[in-house]
Amino acid sequence: MAGNSFGQLFKITTFGESHGPAIGVVIDGVPPKLPLSDADIQKDLDRRRPGQSKITTQRHETDRAQILSGVFEGQTTGAPLAILIRNEDQRPKDYENIKDVFRPGHADFSYMAKFGYRDYRGGGRSSGRETASRVAAGAVAKKILAKHKIQIIVYTLAVGDIYAQNIDYKIIEQNAVRTADAKAAAVMIAKIEEARKQGDSIGAILECVVKGCPPGLGDPCFDKLNARLSLGLMSIGSVKAIEFGDGFGASRSTGSVNNDRFVLKAKRVSCLTNHSGGIIGGISTGEDIIIRLGLKPPSSISQLQKTLNEKYQEVQVRVKGRHDPCLAPRIVPVAEAMIALTLVDCLMIQKATKL
Amino acid sequence: MAGNSFGQLFKITTFGESHGPAIGVVIDGVPPKLPLSDADIQKDLDRRRPGQSKITTQRHETDRAQILSGVFEGQTTGAPLAILIRNEDQRPKDYENIKDVFRPGHADFSYMAKFGYRDYRGGGRSSGRETASRVAAGAVAKKILAKHKIQIIVYTLAVGDIYAQNIDYKIIEQNAVRTADAKAAAVMIAKIEEARKQGDSIGAILECVVKGCPPGLGDPCFDKLNARLSLGLMSIGSVKAIEFGDGFGASRSTGSVNNDRFVLKAKRVSCLTNHSGGIIGGISTGEDIIIRLGLKPPSSISQLQKTLNEKYQEVQVRVKGRHDPCLAPRIVPVAEAMIALTLVDCLMIQKATKL
Amino acid sequence: MAGNSFGQLFKITTFGESHGPAIGVVIDGVPPKLPLSDADIQKDLDRRRPGQSKITTQRHETDRAQILSGVFEGQTTGAPLAILIRNEDQRPKDYENIKDVFRPGHADFSYMAKFGYRDYRGGGRSSGRETASRVAAGAVAKKILAKHKIQIIVYTLAVGDIYAQNIDYKIIEQNAVRTADAKAAAVMIAKIEEARKQGDSIGAILECVVKGCPPGLGDPCFDKLNARLSLGLMSIGSVKAIEFGDGFGASRSTGSVNNDRFVLKAKRVSCLTNHSGGIIGGISTGEDIIIRLGLKPPSSISQLQKTLNEKYQEVQVRVKGRHDPCLAPRIVPVAEAMIALTLVDCLMIQKATKL
Amino acid sequence: MAGNSFGQLFKITTFGESHGPAIGVVIDGVPPKLPLSDADIQKDLDRRRPGQSKITTQRHETDRAQILSGVFEGQTTGAPLAILIRNEDQRPKDYENIKDVFRPGHADFSYMAKFGYRDYRGGGRSSGRETASRVAAGAVAKKILAKHKIQIIVYTLAVGDIYAQNIDYKIIEQNAVRTADAKAAAVMIAKIEEARKQGDSIGAILECVVKGCPPGLGDPCFDKLNARLSLGLMSIGSVKAIEFGDGFGASRSTGSVNNDRFVLKAKRVSCLTNHSGGIIGGISTGEDIIIRLGLKPPSSISQLQKTLNEKYQEVQVRVKGRHDPCLAPRIVPVAEAMIALTLVDCLMIQKATKL
Repeated sequence: MAGNSFGQLFKITTFGESHGPAIGVVIDGVPPKLPLSDADIQKDLDRRRPGQSKITTQRHETDRAQILSGVFEGQTTGAPLAILIRNEDQRPKDYENIKDVFRPGHADFSYMAKFGYRDYRGGGRSSGRETASRVAAGAVAKKILAKHKIQIIVYTLAVGDIYAQNIDYKIIEQNAVRTADAKAAAVMIAKIEEARKQGDSIGAILECVVKGCPPGLGDPCFDKLNARLSLGLMSIGSVKAIEFGDGFGASRSTGSVNNDRFVLKAKRVSCLTNHSGGIIGGISTGEDIIIRLGLKPPSSISQLQKTLNEKYQEVQVRVKGRHDPCLAPRIVPVAEAMIALTLVDCLMIQKATKL
Repeated sequence: MAGNSFGQLFKITTFGESHGPAIGVVIDGVPPKLPLSDADIQKDLDRRRPGQSKITTQRHETDRAQILSGVFEGQTTGAPLAILIRNEDQRPKDYENIKDVFRPGHADFSYMAKFGYRDYRGGGRSSGRETASRVAAGAVAKKILAKHKIQIIVYTLAVGDIYAQNIDYKIIEQNAVRTADAKAAAVMIAKIEEARKQGDSIGAILECVVKGCPPGLGDPCFDKLNARLSLGLMSIGSVKAIEFGDGFGASRSTGSVNNDRFVLKAKRVSCLTNHSGGIIGGISTGEDIIIRLGLKPPSSISQLQKTLNEKYQEVQVRVKGRHDPCLAPRIVPVAEAMIALTLVDCLMIQKATKL
Repeated sequence: MAGNSFGQLFKITTFGESHGPAIGVVIDGVPPKLPLSDADIQKDLDRRRPGQSKITTQRHETDRAQILSGVFEGQTTGAPLAILIRNEDQRPKDYENIKDVFRPGHADFSYMAKFGYRDYRGGGRSSGRETASRVAAGAVAKKILAKHKIQIIVYTLAVGDIYAQNIDYKIIEQNAVRTADAKAAAVMIAKIEEARKQGDSIGAILECVVKGCPPGLGDPCFDKLNARLSLGLMSIGSVKAIEFGDGFGASRSTGSVNNDRFVLKAKRVSCLTNHSGGIIGGISTGEDIIIRLGLKPPSSISQLQKTLNEKYQEVQVRVKGRHDPCLAPRIVPVAEAMIALTLVDCLMIQKATKL
Repeated sequence: MAGNSFGQLFKITTFGESHGPAIGVVIDGVPPKLPLSDADIQKDLDRRRPGQSKITTQRHETDRAQILSGVFEGQTTGAPLAILIRNEDQRPKDYENIKDVFRPGHADFSYMAKFGYRDYRGGGRSSGRETASRVAAGAVAKKILAKHKIQIIVYTLAVGDIYAQNIDYKIIEQNAVRTADAKAAAVMIAKIEEARKQGDSIGAILECVVKGCPPGLGDPCFDKLNARLSLGLMSIGSVKAIEFGDGFGASRSTGSVNNDRFVLKAKRVSCLTNHSGGIIGGISTGEDIIIRLGLKPPSSISQLQKTLNEKYQEVQVRVKGRHDPCLAPRIVPVAEAMIALTLVDCLMIQKATKL
């Protein structure tokens, strides 16, 4: 209820703050006999960790994942998996000057309103660092999806007003901004560096594509697949908008255009167009699931900003520390994780439904 | 798990299909001693029911709500509220010609993929009729919010590419399309009628504003207020996109612009701008919560469409019956309901947190 | 959370008070394509309803179940089942003299402490009438169990100090007290009638036997099969004690005696003895599951009792109305229902586990 | 769902096996601003840990608890608490001879039936070691209860057929068997030592008393306080029976005797007798809550036993290692923990109910 768990049958609970000894995650509901090692998890953590490139924060965390339970002789046992990630590069001093300040765009004030108390070092649970736990859990979910031949692709569609145009998934991991268009990548990176130089930050849009999702996942009413994916994806700190298929574009369209015609393709029911983004009536159709996420510009900027402190006095603050000028490249694996966690859960529920 | 419940402490479970004897909802967790009568619920149901105006479906349902339990001498007792709404205007014949057809844009195929079986009369649980149960429950939630002086306003921001411009909440209930701009209303209505005449339908955008929400609602991690609102709102059949505050606009913005500066207003912490839409770090700030919902054009259109039937044969279908050419006016009370249900739940959780 | 739901994947929510218009239950998670009719449910309701014999209350309720949703052309659709049971024989006048009295043994005072308000007519949600909803849901669960060849037998093991000795399951439904020993039946019935004549009531013990439960149901930690069965069975109003296998007898035993030796029987692993009652480490072994339930004597007695009223004044009360002098025969189908609901849920969870 | 979580608003998730690197627990829903240190938790862990006395297992574990998150400057923050306990004294060799054997009384066979795979070293999740995590979480719950002046007392009522008679709570922590009767203590200890010498083990009964519980906790229907306590207590590995108040004694009683008369005591409503054990209609009355737990004799005995191995061959097994001949003294703090966790959860739910 206190909101640190996600999922129903494949359920994760994350814990930890960026300035305590460790963060981590417990996954309950992992099917037994799944081959799994620390390395499986590390691969994705490395894609999220800070310091990967010049356009991400220079905070130094190796983010080593250690599986504490639930694996025996290289296979899951059905017992809960606990994964621990030690914090290494803590610099609480970075936060001394802002300990009683409500940083603009940050959850400092919301936290005080909610809890009457806060760990001012690094944003507590609303810190981006919490997402490492999600990525670790997502890596386990992806291993299960791989068995079912379900693949998740996430890439940076836009940075500010620079859009990827000629999409080529193969290059996503080959450029620092994780976009799918080599030309756009260079422009995006320049844009991000410019923002950083100005002590500023910049927003972005991610596109998510799920390939190979079988039809029939999701439920018709409150647990629509798009509703559950929205819950998971909107719970990523910087996401302010989400759309499925044509999304807001469908709001300007008509039924005769927007309805996807069913056709037979390779002997299975398929859609001639995919305006619906692979989900109709809350249930997957078997077409690619298409999602776009709107990311706000990071709130931590080094420009001087006016705000209030805890005594309600007007103050000026410059958010020191090592921050990301654009969240897109590091949110890519986080979005993958939230999608993977949701899909595994839906697969398990679907399995149970056909008792 | 099977997804017909919503909420944690204030939890609703809906049931019923449009062509069975009745639909309804059970609300568990209603605080005791809340004054409540059938009339309280009827008021909102009347705003959702079909046949209200020339631009909504002409299906005739009075949608009379009857409280079956949980109220004694005009007050809630703390026991679960069951609310029943009898179905009246069933015309299963309307569905005879489509009983084995996968209507484009409809969940017919998704249902078969999920359940291997379906009630072809009216779409089963993915029917818009299910939302009457949500509206009934939402009416109870709104009575609780009223005690806390929290107000929810939802209106049609756009129909196709016609946008409301000069916003005046007072006129929302005075025009058939439930927009907040009298001039735009006329154009929107004309646009909807035109679509209907062409046997077509049209998409729309709703804007939702919550006034008076106290700071501190929502949780920092998975149960962010925006995540939970997204779960609820995205579970409304026609919603394909959602954004909070500047939403996708924030993706094109910079931190120095997008960060909301905290200021003191009437002795309470407030924001000079509200790019964040009243939620930062997943927790309400006390500013107006601003949400926009992208609605797809209704899938039921009377134009002839090509599709497949259950034998995977290509067929042509004309969706007969009495359908809405634009969902916006009837989704307004549904969106209000989902927001109200979410907020009451968050208020209760917040209450428990401060043990 | 407010506690009117039971189950995880096969989840029921009950509603209704004995003196409102109706009671009922919503079952979410019913697998599709299960043949089901009102008659399937009525059969078990008839075994629970009042007025069956001279040793049960003479309140007259036909308890007609009506399925409102989730069934189409005689089969479940996967949508939630709502089952409604109208109240017929309401005599709120019976409660006039006790409306402000805390009846001894009843939840009147507890209710006031919890809710600050109560529906004094018939005990509200703690009324035995609520169990009709459970029995209706249990009938659906039993149909699923029957497909899996799992059978539940519950009978009256003891009334006061009279114990059934020569157990013959076939006669259970042939005697008014639902015991499994014809000779003991006569003595038990006499004992119950004697209690009633004295304006008193009497306690009893039920024995529950599950045959055909596959090994592997239940979870090793908090959701042990015995823990979940205890949750369900202890939630029946009159149950004050529960034991599995040898139960308290095991507390006086030694490991060398109490450990069940594994042997091969008909090519499957089996136990030579069954001290554990079919559950070891929280997981079913495949042996018969054996449970005993201690029922308290009903609190409603017609003898004059001293107590307090809501003004904290000492008063005398005689609980009028038509009450059961012994709960055993009518709790038999309720216990069956709670066991059936738990087992179906565990079967579904087990199905999902092996993704 | 996979059953490693307990609680609704104050929710714990435990993880870890006795032969992995660590066990632990995540507590979600801890109210903010509760003073808390490792030492608060250690105190109870020390009461559960092995090697405390000659009648407990000689396995050597210091069971040092480390809080990894959720505490800042000595106070809880509202973020999830993760508590880690490293395993120290692992001797997997002890399990070599039983790796493919279904030990009688143990969950080895149940596990294989459920998961198709098992970590044979020490019983996996059904190991008693898992309860250390519960005790750690329970220590946090007790700190909250202490603020509400609610006290939990658990002691050994019987070992085999030796019962404590002259109850004096003050001596519970002064004798190795944690009974409340000094004379009986000596006899019980002798009995346990005798069992051990014979390579055998012995059962026991615990009595639990909750003092100061306010009236109004628990819910009228499925989440009755006794039902929820049963779920928690029956999920302790060795518990085979549970009763509230007079329990099975009530089954032999009559209503006129068993009904507790309400009287005014120190200006509050109270009961003259407490046959109901402090809970009526599933809700606390304010009287002492009285629970008795039947513990089976531990399954690990050093006598030679016949059983099967994984190839279904008959084998003889002697369970080596360092085991408890009687579980009572070490289960005392575990039972306290499960009661404390349940009560804190009910307090939080009750708080939320009165919105």
